[in-house]
Amino acid sequence: MKKYLLGIDLGGTTIKFGLILPTGEIVHQWSIPTNTEQAGSNITTEMIASIQQVLQQKQIGLDEIIGAGMGCPGTVDRTEGSIRNAFNLGWTTPQLVRAQFQENLGLELVIENDANVAALGEKWQGSGEDAANLVFMTLGTGVGGGVIVNNQIVEGVGGAGGEIGHFPVICSHEFSCTCGNSNCLETLASATGIVNLAKKYRKETETSLNHFEELSSAQVFQEAQAGDKVALQVVDEISAYLGTACSVMANLLNPSVIVIGGGVSSAKEFLLDKIAHHFEQGVFPTVKETTQLKLATLGNDAGILGAAYLVKEGENNV
Amino acid sequence: MKKYLLGIDLGGTTIKFGLILPTGEIVHQWSIPTNTEQAGSNITTEMIASIQQVLQQKQIGLDEIIGAGMGCPGTVDRTEGSIRNAFNLGWTTPQLVRAQFQENLGLELVIENDANVAALGEKWQGSGEDAANLVFMTLGTGVGGGVIVNNQIVEGVGGAGGEIGHFPVICSHEFSCTCGNSNCLETLASATGIVNLAKKYRKETETSLNHFEELSSAQVFQEAQAGDKVALQVVDEISAYLGTACSVMANLLNPSVIVIGGGVSSAKEFLLDKIAHHFEQGVFPTVKETTQLKLATLGNDAGILGAAYLVKEGENNV
Repeated sequence: MKKYLLGIDLGGTTIKFGLILPTGEIVHQWSIPTNTEQAGSNITTEMIASIQQVLQQKQIGLDEIIGAGMGCPGTVDRTEGSIRNAFNLGWTTPQLVRAQFQENLGLELVIENDANVAALGEKWQGSGEDAANLVFMTLGTGVGGGVIVNNQIVEGVGGAGGEIGHFPVICSHEFSCTCGNSNCLETLASATGIVNLAKKYRKETETSLNHFEELSSAQVFQEAQAGDKVALQVVDEISAYLGTACSVMANLLNPSVIVIGGGVSSAKEFLLDKIAHHFEQGVFPTVKETTQLKLATLGNDAGILGAAYLVKEGENNV
Repeated sequence: MKKYLLGIDLGGTTIKFGLILPTGEIVHQWSIPTNTEQAGSNITTEMIASIQQVLQQKQIGLDEIIGAGMGCPGTVDRTEGSIRNAFNLGWTTPQLVRAQFQENLGLELVIENDANVAALGEKWQGSGEDAANLVFMTLGTGVGGGVIVNNQIVEGVGGAGGEIGHFPVICSHEFSCTCGNSNCLETLASATGIVNLAKKYRKETETSLNHFEELSSAQVFQEAQAGDKVALQVVDEISAYLGTACSVMANLLNPSVIVIGGGVSSAKEFLLDKIAHHFEQGVFPTVKETTQLKLATLGNDAGILGAAYLVKEGENNV
């Protein structure tokens, strides 16, 4: 009997797998390192081998799997079932991953952009509470996003929906972004951006941030909570950028919730309260009453859960 | 035989009507003044009477009308078929307009927010080219918006989707907005905002804008095109605000097109080119390639056409 959803989270460092019940319960999860050597040419075969091995260990037949879903970096071609431009996997050419899964496992594979998949995970089992309208913002090395409107992922006409990290920020800085523009939100409010901002300010004044040779965003938050003025200035400033970005998204879409996740969000309420302060100053009264800001709750499991949800709900009507 | 769609555009000054074929051809259109006296208590009966009169004149039977659609200000209760908070119509209590149409004309009426209806009009017969994903931004006395994602209007959980006019703008001004916040986009980039900005700057320096006792946004554009530096400064500044707003919307939704309409957009390419300049600086490369900025083409007919389209496509799946 078909009873498991197979959720896969394909990242640049690790590939996570989960056998998940349609109720959302994770029955078993495991991971393997992402082998980016030889232009990532072994990634798909290693994924397939790992699935076969674990199913055998667990004495689960392929006929018990309802289907497989996968979140991945890069650009997804939903018609072809392929992935392009996933440079952090080493892939320089389009990869026909769906066909390889079909051929070797006899499994239908649904592929989707990783930020969209995390949004689905939080919608289904996290702080999204199954909302039909939700924005997920992830603050990690970069800033990413997934947008769900009327229960559907907003792909965008060129597949670039949810590029929250590239919102232009009006500020006095001049940080170049990998996309070619300047002062994109992720040049300031990602883990990388926070460190860049802190390094800029610590040159100018006495601060406990000068005690760290290398600096991480976690250290900036730690020092801010300990009361260091420069660290607090950095956190306040990026909270203003994030709060304004959230208020613009909320005024445009009036979703039930904007979920904030990613490594930077481990600063929890210390960060959320500051973002909310700026958010509330920038939203229309009805939006303030109806759109909530929340922290993500699934952490690293958002990817496998969202990938499983892709299968559960079907590709085009999540 | 049922062959006409009846499109109604209920505004604070005028009520426009159109008998429209399912192909989008306007067969006949007319208007009546909006009677806001006695708390607007005669508005619905006067609409119904006008429809009855024109149909009789044209020798068209009610059984030839497929259905009626209406765009209106205020908040629409789609379940109840009523309109609330339409203060510019004089209405202080919810109006059960759908029931009155059903009772007196035997016509099904679909009601929708006016900015959303204009967005549908432009999508169907204007510069939207039937795009499944489109944002409509209207620059009039205020700034309004309608958002269409995956062929559906984005209502928002509290009915406040598309509140583009209340995007917070980071700037050095301090203009209060009717919503209670400061420096909302419409306090700067609406016809009213343009005049406020021009009045602020003309105090400070010599400009041809000082020749006008009262000032209109049209005069600001006229003087800017004639080369007046202060007028140009105003137009450049509001174009930056609008361009940034458009780039944020485009990075979030990656729609096929952002359509710019409303009275202020009669400045045509002179304004559009300036907005586009700032827009292009703020969008992710894929978005720049795939999301277009366009001027609205329907003018005052967007409302009746969009209202007719509401009927044509059904309320929940436009």
